[in-house]
Amino acid sequence: MTITITAFEKSPDGGKGLARDTRIRWALEEVGQPYAVRLVSFKAMKEPAHLALHPFGQIPTYEEDGVAIFETGAIVFHIAQRFAGLLPNDPAARAHAIAWIFAALNTVEPPILELQTAVLLDKDKPWSAERLPEVKDRVRVRLKQLSAYLGDAEWLDGAFSAGDLMMASVLLRLRASGLLDEFPNLAAYVARGEARPAYKRAFAAQLEINKPV
Amino acid sequence: MTITITAFEKSPDGGKGLARDTRIRWALEEVGQPYAVRLVSFKAMKEPAHLALHPFGQIPTYEEDGVAIFETGAIVFHIAQRFAGLLPNDPAARAHAIAWIFAALNTVEPPILELQTAVLLDKDKPWSAERLPEVKDRVRVRLKQLSAYLGDAEWLDGAFSAGDLMMASVLLRLRASGLLDEFPNLAAYVARGEARPAYKRAFAAQLEINKPV
Repeated sequence: MTITITAFEKSPDGGKGLARDTRIRWALEEVGQPYAVRLVSFKAMKEPAHLALHPFGQIPTYEEDGVAIFETGAIVFHIAQRFAGLLPNDPAARAHAIAWIFAALNTVEPPILELQTAVLLDKDKPWSAERLPEVKDRVRVRLKQLSAYLGDAEWLDGAFSAGDLMMASVLLRLRASGLLDEFPNLAAYVARGEARPAYKRAFAAQLEINKPV
Repeated sequence: MTITITAFEKSPDGGKGLARDTRIRWALEEVGQPYAVRLVSFKAMKEPAHLALHPFGQIPTYEEDGVAIFETGAIVFHIAQRFAGLLPNDPAARAHAIAWIFAALNTVEPPILELQTAVLLDKDKPWSAERLPEVKDRVRVRLKQLSAYLGDAEWLDGAFSAGDLMMASVLLRLRASGLLDEFPNLAAYVARGEARPAYKRAFAAQLEINKPV
């Protein structure tokens, strides 16, 4: 069995680990599965061969013995179902950990993506400075709730799970904004994620491809 | 076994079916499971009893014999795993259908949520009219790709699945914008979803609670 994922030929973030293949690499490292990487250029991502794998022309994708899937959340979930180590066995605890994967992607990440768009794409618009505070406030609403839930705990629901992997990955996108530092327990939570050996290996692997020449 | 979900005491959409409990009701109707509904006020949603169930103080939640979860995507997925009818049995086809659930929520819905914010919350801002076209264009990028993938097919991957349920639910949010009508095959796809008896029952059940007095 060979697992093959796709990643940017050159990530727009220059190796900061924010491209979504890092999330997949992290999951594969946590469960101890080797994998091959096929690099895809921006041009090739929009061509029929890649679109057949990924209808939205993005990375990452995941291929393994007849399974061919797209969408980061689905891939992390697939890895967590397929190999031991990222989801609890107890059905109720497992369902709750899966809820955190979805919460990271559909409740916490959307306002963060909106902030990213506001900062990167809209920064030269005449209304950019006026609009930014409200965009940041929408992110803060979610961070405050997440911070209250986490409290002093190490991970969201006891042991580290795929839900933590996804939540920490989503929060990592906030580092440059300074918003994470407004919630020290969330900043420490993300730092615990980054300190895991599996994350370090995943980060190093993507950096190897993307490091500045 | 009793399944209990939560829904708005009074939905902000006045019964248009866009509140997320409709997605859960639809899934439960598709698999033929009866369910109880506990209505929650906006005030109660932010109080400890509800926050213990839903850390972000939202609806819907799902409770069933020891399982207590939040987040619409996770609940629809749980229902689809637990009861037959919403996911194919073949492992590769099943993984692909699950990918569509995540794609609906993390690739297609975020720009739609951004459009909704732009239209509802920012409509009186001096820059609202200038910004709106670019927000709509970001939605169009995803609709164009989805439309190309769907082509003349009835559903995304052969038989109707939880992926179609989620994608159609996400696209329904676009109806008022007129954007859906720019892609006739997507408009027809959503209409096929709405025509399913299970959707009709789900819609009628939420309307019963939310209909204008």
